[in-house]
Amino acid sequence: MAKIVVLGAGVMGTALCVPASENGHTVLLVGTPLDQNIVATLRQPGGVHPKLDDPLSANVEAISFDALRSDHLGNADFIVAGVSSPGIEWVTDMLNRLMAAPCPVAFVTKGLDARGATVSTYAQALPPRIPMMSAFVAIGGPCIARELANRLPTASIYACRDISVAERFAKIMETDYYRLSVTTDDTGIEACAALKNFFAIGVSAMQTRYPDPRRANSQSKNPTAAAFTQATLEMARLCERLGGQSATAFGLAGLGDLHVTVGGGRNSRLGHGLGTGRTVLDVLSRELLGETVEGVDTARVLATMPLDEPLTKGDATGYFPLASAIMDAVLEHKPFALDFSSLVVR
Amino acid sequence: MAKIVVLGAGVMGTALCVPASENGHTVLLVGTPLDQNIVATLRQPGGVHPKLDDPLSANVEAISFDALRSDHLGNADFIVAGVSSPGIEWVTDMLNRLMAAPCPVAFVTKGLDARGATVSTYAQALPPRIPMMSAFVAIGGPCIARELANRLPTASIYACRDISVAERFAKIMETDYYRLSVTTDDTGIEACAALKNFFAIGVSAMQTRYPDPRRANSQSKNPTAAAFTQATLEMARLCERLGGQSATAFGLAGLGDLHVTVGGGRNSRLGHGLGTGRTVLDVLSRELLGETVEGVDTARVLATMPLDEPLTKGDATGYFPLASAIMDAVLEHKPFALDFSSLVVR
Repeated sequence: MAKIVVLGAGVMGTALCVPASENGHTVLLVGTPLDQNIVATLRQPGGVHPKLDDPLSANVEAISFDALRSDHLGNADFIVAGVSSPGIEWVTDMLNRLMAAPCPVAFVTKGLDARGATVSTYAQALPPRIPMMSAFVAIGGPCIARELANRLPTASIYACRDISVAERFAKIMETDYYRLSVTTDDTGIEACAALKNFFAIGVSAMQTRYPDPRRANSQSKNPTAAAFTQATLEMARLCERLGGQSATAFGLAGLGDLHVTVGGGRNSRLGHGLGTGRTVLDVLSRELLGETVEGVDTARVLATMPLDEPLTKGDATGYFPLASAIMDAVLEHKPFALDFSSLVVR
Repeated sequence: MAKIVVLGAGVMGTALCVPASENGHTVLLVGTPLDQNIVATLRQPGGVHPKLDDPLSANVEAISFDALRSDHLGNADFIVAGVSSPGIEWVTDMLNRLMAAPCPVAFVTKGLDARGATVSTYAQALPPRIPMMSAFVAIGGPCIARELANRLPTASIYACRDISVAERFAKIMETDYYRLSVTTDDTGIEACAALKNFFAIGVSAMQTRYPDPRRANSQSKNPTAAAFTQATLEMARLCERLGGQSATAFGLAGLGDLHVTVGGGRNSRLGHGLGTGRTVLDVLSRELLGETVEGVDTARVLATMPLDEPLTKGDATGYFPLASAIMDAVLEHKPFALDFSSLVVR
């Protein structure tokens, strides 16, 4: 039986406790300073995480951050960082203060970072900052936490440059309903997590840009099909530009996640609004007021990359008409206008 | 200016007259014996095809099959076969009777054929049957004919083993709203056209199999994302088994078409019914009464292939859990039951 420590009692980290504990492993779920109420609830018998539906198994113990000790981490077979981007500093700090022995750390956190001259992912940025982290594992693929916790069939992908580490963690976590593949492409997994939100805005915009009143949902099909295919293609190219493998975009973390992200959610709703001719400010100030739209964050980061420059002179793969249209709309506040005549370079 | 002859005045062949004539080419639209009323309508000033919204341009002349002469075909730069599978015999007959000089023929027709020992597509079956056909071109990719005729942005893919022929035809047909890529993989294009209908049944079944009552459309996301990715993977493997290239499945004709086919239509509706535990006979005898569900036809053909046998011993790529689940449901009348624990072979 393995010992797992999950740092952060957000919904994703907590959901991961379900398959782990079901496999008989021991899980220590450590709340951040912002998770005090959650931890208090989970420490009560029958306590249920506010965003989940059922209590956790007895193999899972929830503790407050200030109860975490060095030996907890020292005994762990794996550490999971179950925080979103704002929580990375806290995780880094806890690990650096309390890790006394090397241990792999798996991150649910996704993000593209534009600090410095190049865009990077946590796969590149974190290892130098956490010396005792023996391996960085990216937990990727489309995963609504509550669905996983409710044991709905979920496929995920674990990425580690040392594939044996990813395999070992996958074997610990895998159940009949939680199916895991592995890859060495940690950078690509993280890049796709950000890119699919961004491209979902554009595919969704194409769903409403050319309405078909004869259909129940008013959405025509040809423009959507073209946009989805173009999005996959550009996502693969950008994934490579960011240091990942294009094949990653053609799998679960890319096209699989893009398919469901287009189906509904904040990025999709922003796109639907843009497709009807509205500006980004209009949509963000009305139905999406107060909500974070991750694809917009990704757009800001991509804007720092020279996307009009081909990788090499005459390289037709350096052309991103859909990404350009999305960025013009969400960053330049222009109407969403994909130059369709520029699609498909032959 | 080119001269194009379109055989068959169905909605797809007729829709192709729009970009062709817009580019200044002359189009002769030849009705089959079943198209007499359509031809009569189109020969009237302002006549509109019953399934389209606007009259065709003056460059398009509609004639009845019995007015087609050898020299019409002899003067043509391209011939288009705008029929569905039942019309292939008529097209073959007309071409063999009236072609006096070699000419390329482009087919909108898609189909997998299980006659004989192997499954084949029209790309393999037709060239030997039409000696004067100098090249076979498959017109592929998701294309709702009426949307193309209405100039909605549409991306298609033209396939020919002689890529220069595909390029030439694409140049003739391409407009600002009709963007064309080319490939040599005529077999793959045809295979994907059939396979995406089949796999859409399974992805759609996963949309309703694990409902999430908290969502507006009651559909959970994780199972759908997993199924869409698995469908793309299996479609690529099957495409190769059928003699095509897996890359074709990862493009417009595969994932692009699958994405919109899952979004709605008869295959999708059959899948939704199967996902709720109903049998195929129940769905086909109620809401789909009298309608052809092409994915079921594809299932019948796939059933003749030995899908449980790997290509080579120990070849994990020979495993098709999603295809098997779909075939069990639509051919064996079993409940739809994807063995999720078998997904992701590592």
